[in-house]
Amino acid sequence: MSVVLFDLACAQDERRFSPFCWRTRLALAHKGLEVETRPWRMVEKDAIAMSGQGKVPVIIDDGQVVFDSWTIAQYLEDTYADAPSLFGGGGPAAYEFIRNWADGVLLPFVARMAMADILSHLHDKDRSYFREVREAAFGATIEQVSADRDERIVEFRTRLEPLRRQFGAHPFIGGETPDYADYVVASIFLMSRAVSPFRLLAAGDVIGDWAERMLDVHDGLARATPGYAIWGSAGEA
Amino acid sequence: MSVVLFDLACAQDERRFSPFCWRTRLALAHKGLEVETRPWRMVEKDAIAMSGQGKVPVIIDDGQVVFDSWTIAQYLEDTYADAPSLFGGGGPAAYEFIRNWADGVLLPFVARMAMADILSHLHDKDRSYFREVREAAFGATIEQVSADRDERIVEFRTRLEPLRRQFGAHPFIGGETPDYADYVVASIFLMSRAVSPFRLLAAGDVIGDWAERMLDVHDGLARATPGYAIWGSAGEA
Repeated sequence: MSVVLFDLACAQDERRFSPFCWRTRLALAHKGLEVETRPWRMVEKDAIAMSGQGKVPVIIDDGQVVFDSWTIAQYLEDTYADAPSLFGGGGPAAYEFIRNWADGVLLPFVARMAMADILSHLHDKDRSYFREVREAAFGATIEQVSADRDERIVEFRTRLEPLRRQFGAHPFIGGETPDYADYVVASIFLMSRAVSPFRLLAAGDVIGDWAERMLDVHDGLARATPGYAIWGSAGEA
Repeated sequence: MSVVLFDLACAQDERRFSPFCWRTRLALAHKGLEVETRPWRMVEKDAIAMSGQGKVPVIIDDGQVVFDSWTIAQYLEDTYADAPSLFGGGGPAAYEFIRNWADGVLLPFVARMAMADILSHLHDKDRSYFREVREAAFGATIEQVSADRDERIVEFRTRLEPLRRQFGAHPFIGGETPDYADYVVASIFLMSRAVSPFRLLAAGDVIGDWAERMLDVHDGLARATPGYAIWGSAGEA
């Protein structure tokens, strides 16, 4: 039986941008599980009411409902212990640090830079909800939040330095093969790729080579979804 | 038989500030190994010539010479596989990322801020060597390099945010007990503690609570060494 994943979608069903859903989707693939994704929109709170909260990712695995991407990752690691490890075969603590770095350092940059592009790709039913929630959080219009991205990108690329160092030694953050460390960081690039033609990486950045590899893993799972070419070659919707 | 560790020392034998030696020393303690540290100064290249290079840490373990802190960590993990794991029981890749973050983000800040204080604590025989090498690297005098630390510290504390997030869930970066992730990051704080009264952390920062815990681990190994109280209570030489 497939695992069901409620996965945040844009106007187009197959355009998925939530970084938290992306890391879950890649983790499910890592564990070799069959997945049925259900396109979900922010206002569809009823569809995930069984989880007792209002955000995705939510998975249903053989009747068991699990939410929160980090909780799901640990659930999958424990439940499918015989499948390849998400955490290098050991404890998840170091991976939690990488998650904290990705979500505390990278995500705020990318979320701001991509926000206007997210809005323009959202399903009609989500637009006013998204604008209201985000503008309250930022105290500015969505257009204002994304307006300075040509300046912000410079600092963002500097902040990627620890990642750049990693690829001197190995093709993936997790080493010779990708693991949850890769999924967490890639999920933020995949958010931007889904909705934004804005280039996160300069040409020739080794991180772009890794990002291309991440589009290919698990039978090209991410590459098969609609998105812009934000690294490597020319952009495409 | 004890493992021998060549450990960078100041004028005072027991004042140790090299972050790369500190992480090695804590890793040796983690593995429960008896250690004999040999205070070493930068100009004493002959003493470690058997390693084929000129930097510490260098260890001699039952006749085997190993250098480079990251190589040593992996050597210890493989050689003493039955002792508690440095890497959460799994592969080292995620820990390598934390090392890249610590050395790529934190260390450049702390090294600059502490540099004039390092110079003033060095053994006489190391001072001109240190000044020459560092001033060539920075293209400025050591005093100039450290002069703007009251401004730099603001940005440094912001950059610690992923670490702060980590301590919401666990007392150590490695989880419920410290591991190599903790040693790598703590080593940078221990460098500053050894030589500088400059406060790296604001009062009340949760990272200070962790730093205090790190002084206590392995029977107070770090706390027993000379240093300034750069977190927690008042400073002391």
